[in-house]
Amino acid sequence: MSSEKIALTQTVQKGGCAAKVAASELRKILQRVQFPAAHPALMIDGGLFDDAAIYKVTEDIAMVQTLDFFTPIVDTPKLFGAIAAANALSDVYAMGGKPKTAMGILAFPIATMTDDVIVDVLQGASDKVAEAGANFVGGHSIDDDTLKFGLSVTGFVHPNHVWSNAGAQVGDHLILTKALGTGTMTAALKRQEASEADIMEALESMATVNNALDFMNEEQKKSVHAATDITGFGLSGHSMQLAKASQVTLKFQAQSLPKFAKALHFLEKGFLTKAHRSNAQYTENDIDVTALDNLHKLLIHDPQTSGGLLLSVPASLSADLVANLKKKFSFAAVVGEVLPKSDKAVIFE
Amino acid sequence: MSSEKIALTQTVQKGGCAAKVAASELRKILQRVQFPAAHPALMIDGGLFDDAAIYKVTEDIAMVQTLDFFTPIVDTPKLFGAIAAANALSDVYAMGGKPKTAMGILAFPIATMTDDVIVDVLQGASDKVAEAGANFVGGHSIDDDTLKFGLSVTGFVHPNHVWSNAGAQVGDHLILTKALGTGTMTAALKRQEASEADIMEALESMATVNNALDFMNEEQKKSVHAATDITGFGLSGHSMQLAKASQVTLKFQAQSLPKFAKALHFLEKGFLTKAHRSNAQYTENDIDVTALDNLHKLLIHDPQTSGGLLLSVPASLSADLVANLKKKFSFAAVVGEVLPKSDKAVIFE
Repeated sequence: MSSEKIALTQTVQKGGCAAKVAASELRKILQRVQFPAAHPALMIDGGLFDDAAIYKVTEDIAMVQTLDFFTPIVDTPKLFGAIAAANALSDVYAMGGKPKTAMGILAFPIATMTDDVIVDVLQGASDKVAEAGANFVGGHSIDDDTLKFGLSVTGFVHPNHVWSNAGAQVGDHLILTKALGTGTMTAALKRQEASEADIMEALESMATVNNALDFMNEEQKKSVHAATDITGFGLSGHSMQLAKASQVTLKFQAQSLPKFAKALHFLEKGFLTKAHRSNAQYTENDIDVTALDNLHKLLIHDPQTSGGLLLSVPASLSADLVANLKKKFSFAAVVGEVLPKSDKAVIFE
Repeated sequence: MSSEKIALTQTVQKGGCAAKVAASELRKILQRVQFPAAHPALMIDGGLFDDAAIYKVTEDIAMVQTLDFFTPIVDTPKLFGAIAAANALSDVYAMGGKPKTAMGILAFPIATMTDDVIVDVLQGASDKVAEAGANFVGGHSIDDDTLKFGLSVTGFVHPNHVWSNAGAQVGDHLILTKALGTGTMTAALKRQEASEADIMEALESMATVNNALDFMNEEQKKSVHAATDITGFGLSGHSMQLAKASQVTLKFQAQSLPKFAKALHFLEKGFLTKAHRSNAQYTENDIDVTALDNLHKLLIHDPQTSGGLLLSVPASLSADLVANLKKKFSFAAVVGEVLPKSDKAVIFE
């Protein structure tokens, strides 16, 4: 049996199995755990059990660490491995770091899935790890009912040049490096209402490693005031977090937001996930969406897998930076600006 | 529902779900994957997707990285978390390193398992991470059918003082820090033929963090010629690997091997795992067991979870070192010696 014949999304059980645990549920649990007192070397805590942590090793070197894994969101094994790897590597880039080592987290049904599938998943991931200039240094695998794959990634960053989400400055321009819409498009795939060919643009984007750093000059690298990657909480949730951490208000021009050609089409067809609703709830008190039509309201809440970086940079540098980033990230665009803090954390116009 | 009432081992599906993938199966798969070319900083590769890797950060600092997770092997949630954490932390100690950061890998059935269970699992793990002097820096959780938990751990070691498994010297004494028998005893628990109280000695051992380093003086730390931890491949498999890597023969005195009081009893009752057979097959051409009775043959193949360290040290230091180690590891003992390489990698007398 060739691995090409298996549609991986159809091997994932229905009914919420192996889905991400909701942030609110997780927070409730984590609040009841007594974690070890933080070591002074721990510059940034993983906090919500979901982001990258930063641990200072020397005055010049800090480790950036992150871990992510999930069930298949696409049908082709190699593509699934590539997307899972790009997604895990992304958190290191979002902190201004460069990935150096990766360990695999692999669960697969030995009895029903051929070796070919696993080889392809690992090859897809390895290619992305190599593209990032990192090494595959081990991991762990178990026999399980449903395929799951991901990486634990460690990278390095200079302790003084960490891109946190807390540094956005009034007057900054906001740059988004990838288009929005992976949530609705992969939902259509899972429901077999779209083929991989139909959503290839989104698949290629998710498999693209977020190494913006390699397309920036030294001045640009040091000028990034704040950054985050847009993933499960959507543009709405992640930009709200950045705004609050930076104590500013972010204003986006909805018409400037890059989106895949068919994203609004799939949203209009009603291919939604639980996260469309939970992201709306998560942000409802802190964002102003009164200017948006219904489809753009869904778009900003669309949960992204391996989404783009949102960068807050001095306005004077944004045009050149976007021009550089477009060499790798064709959708890169200035999408908004940073305002003094008002009663809403994020405003969509 | 109190988490005390759930017998976690009975929530794990029968029939090999979520079990470790056999080494031979995995090797076949990994051989077909083109991994990235190793960076010169990578001192020790994770190799079989299962051990610790070492990555040199500076002339004085190397990272030790490892990742491990599994389904419950005990019934009490807090104990499961503690054992899973001690087991993952162990690989860092086995390389002579000290753990510094840990990220959680958590899969749990939200619909059927109460928050109490997860809080207890995480608390058990956190206590062990704290005991090791490390920090919990994040992780990832998913909704899944069967509970799984483990850690991705990073520690540090001086690049010149890595304990590899390749340095055992003829004349060395072999020290084992924990008793053997966790495989048969947890098999009895899973089959409900023993209670946790019946096998408490083994449970406490598995939850013990392998921080031998803290019980060694500077001379002793630098005198460790080779080390490994005894886990799934049993004493037979791991000692064979160490012997081959060091190009020596290891000779064990079967009567000196520390074992839990009831280990032979449970082996005699026939509480075996697949690994008892696969470890025997894995080692059959390279070890000499002709002097052993049938129960000791099973004991040396018994797969350990969070087993002890096997240390190869100068004979002149072994007595003092064992005396030090006994403060924390009551079963620590000299169990054998290192001979020039002969036609068998390991001899049991």
